[in-house]
Amino acid sequence: MEKLAVLAFGGNALLRSGQKGTFEEQLRNVEATCENLVPLLKQGYGIIIGHGNGPQVGNGLLRHQAGEQAFGLPAQPMDFCGAETQGSIAYLIETGLDRVMARHGISRKVLSLVTRVEVRADDPMFRNPTKPVGPYYAQKPEDGCVYKEDPKGRGWRKVVASPVPVGIENVDLVGRLAAEGYIVVTVGGGGIPVVREGGVLRGVEAVIDKDLASALCAVKTGAQEFYILTDVPKVYINFRQADEKALDTLTVAQAKEYLRAGQFAEGSMAPKVRAGIFFIENGGKTCIITEAGELSNPSCGTRIIQ
Amino acid sequence: MEKLAVLAFGGNALLRSGQKGTFEEQLRNVEATCENLVPLLKQGYGIIIGHGNGPQVGNGLLRHQAGEQAFGLPAQPMDFCGAETQGSIAYLIETGLDRVMARHGISRKVLSLVTRVEVRADDPMFRNPTKPVGPYYAQKPEDGCVYKEDPKGRGWRKVVASPVPVGIENVDLVGRLAAEGYIVVTVGGGGIPVVREGGVLRGVEAVIDKDLASALCAVKTGAQEFYILTDVPKVYINFRQADEKALDTLTVAQAKEYLRAGQFAEGSMAPKVRAGIFFIENGGKTCIITEAGELSNPSCGTRIIQ
Repeated sequence: MEKLAVLAFGGNALLRSGQKGTFEEQLRNVEATCENLVPLLKQGYGIIIGHGNGPQVGNGLLRHQAGEQAFGLPAQPMDFCGAETQGSIAYLIETGLDRVMARHGISRKVLSLVTRVEVRADDPMFRNPTKPVGPYYAQKPEDGCVYKEDPKGRGWRKVVASPVPVGIENVDLVGRLAAEGYIVVTVGGGGIPVVREGGVLRGVEAVIDKDLASALCAVKTGAQEFYILTDVPKVYINFRQADEKALDTLTVAQAKEYLRAGQFAEGSMAPKVRAGIFFIENGGKTCIITEAGELSNPSCGTRIIQ
Repeated sequence: MEKLAVLAFGGNALLRSGQKGTFEEQLRNVEATCENLVPLLKQGYGIIIGHGNGPQVGNGLLRHQAGEQAFGLPAQPMDFCGAETQGSIAYLIETGLDRVMARHGISRKVLSLVTRVEVRADDPMFRNPTKPVGPYYAQKPEDGCVYKEDPKGRGWRKVVASPVPVGIENVDLVGRLAAEGYIVVTVGGGGIPVVREGGVLRGVEAVIDKDLASALCAVKTGAQEFYILTDVPKVYINFRQADEKALDTLTVAQAKEYLRAGQFAEGSMAPKVRAGIFFIENGGKTCIITEAGELSNPSCGTRIIQ
């Protein structure tokens, strides 16, 4: 493989609004997303796939809560539930991608890794947890975790930190195998978050932004291109206003300026643009933010460049 | 790595009787099991780890049922739940093994793969499902699956086939990476069972015997040694009778004779001995059935040989 691309699959690669999330629905969604990778595969790109797990790990936490209440099964912590989703989502991607490749006569192997991603124990985000996760509780649980009351009155919900990823386990191997032609699935859900303590890695309850983890993977593997797949074809300024404007290219300087001006929504486009900036500032060539369906179009999406 | 060993972790590597199965308990159990791998690691063995998932996938199926009842989350099929356990158990093994290696100054990398294992769609076991899985139902569900009534009156329970594994995805790579020094975790729970249909792999509800899947992995990777870790130090004849006798070695011919004579319990020692026979008959040198705690003893366990 001469060129290497990292693709971060968004939530709608697996689950679409209005769907219940049955196995068949999820597999159909994944297969439809993977169909769009065919042009890249036919061009002989080395491919690494990262993916989100927001709804999946949320459902996992609910299932663990329900299992404890119904059957007394100990609810496992968030890092464990994240690891579960790495297994199940990778299995869906492997199945969907194999079907797509069989239809197109492409014979590449898919390889999925359970992946821990290191964050710093002293990341300032740990002092300011903001990501709501898991079930709502009528009473604020007294378990030492941080809970916030839902503004819509649904109860108390745990909030966890979203620390910055600083290392990815086995990422050197990921790059090597992608270069050999393996399609490697890794950093699922942003990775299982771990901190280094006394020389070993320990899981923590946190959510690593999957676009940022994928960007770090793209940097560490020396990928030339980094695709962030989302549910809009381009990045916009004045989004959903009368003077909305789709952007074809965006320099790092422009991107920072628009971020400062609040042009990109937090929890939505802003983290994607930041992940793109991180990629370019650390040696990447092009970050493309687009819809999966646009990938066959050579001028698709918004390109973040130096 | 000059020599290659495949180890199949038994259920008690993760969950011990009398435990509830909290995260801390499971991690402690895994760490204790991994501590016993130190002699093999210090001798420079290439190591591949397979593991069971019986209680874990059982709990997963219960959590999915409880999540459907409590929150309307669609319960996912067994192959999906098996993939979940591959992620979570691999994460526990990685964490435990890293801790052990840090204590002993061993710097090897652990790599965990989500692994599909192929079975034949026409495997005769599909016509005779025997493995009970998942929750008990008061009424026999009418969903086209096979259910059997529990003899102890707990209700109806799904039974699935236990087909023979015939292929392991990416097993060539597993062998190569283990030879390079990676400790590779694969075929978790016997692998996610898939059948080949129209050139692609499709998941099925089944349970592949984890010892047999690990034996196949040992054969396909050309491992010289195959360890089946269980909760007894050796294989016995006349087990738990007055004339019980521990076996130091067992030739394939003897093993087959004892199996025919019903010396080894089905669902317990019989499948382990069969996995050992499969390994030796397909080119393996030694299969050792023993307790993890015996691994530091060079004459541990029962050796199945040609």
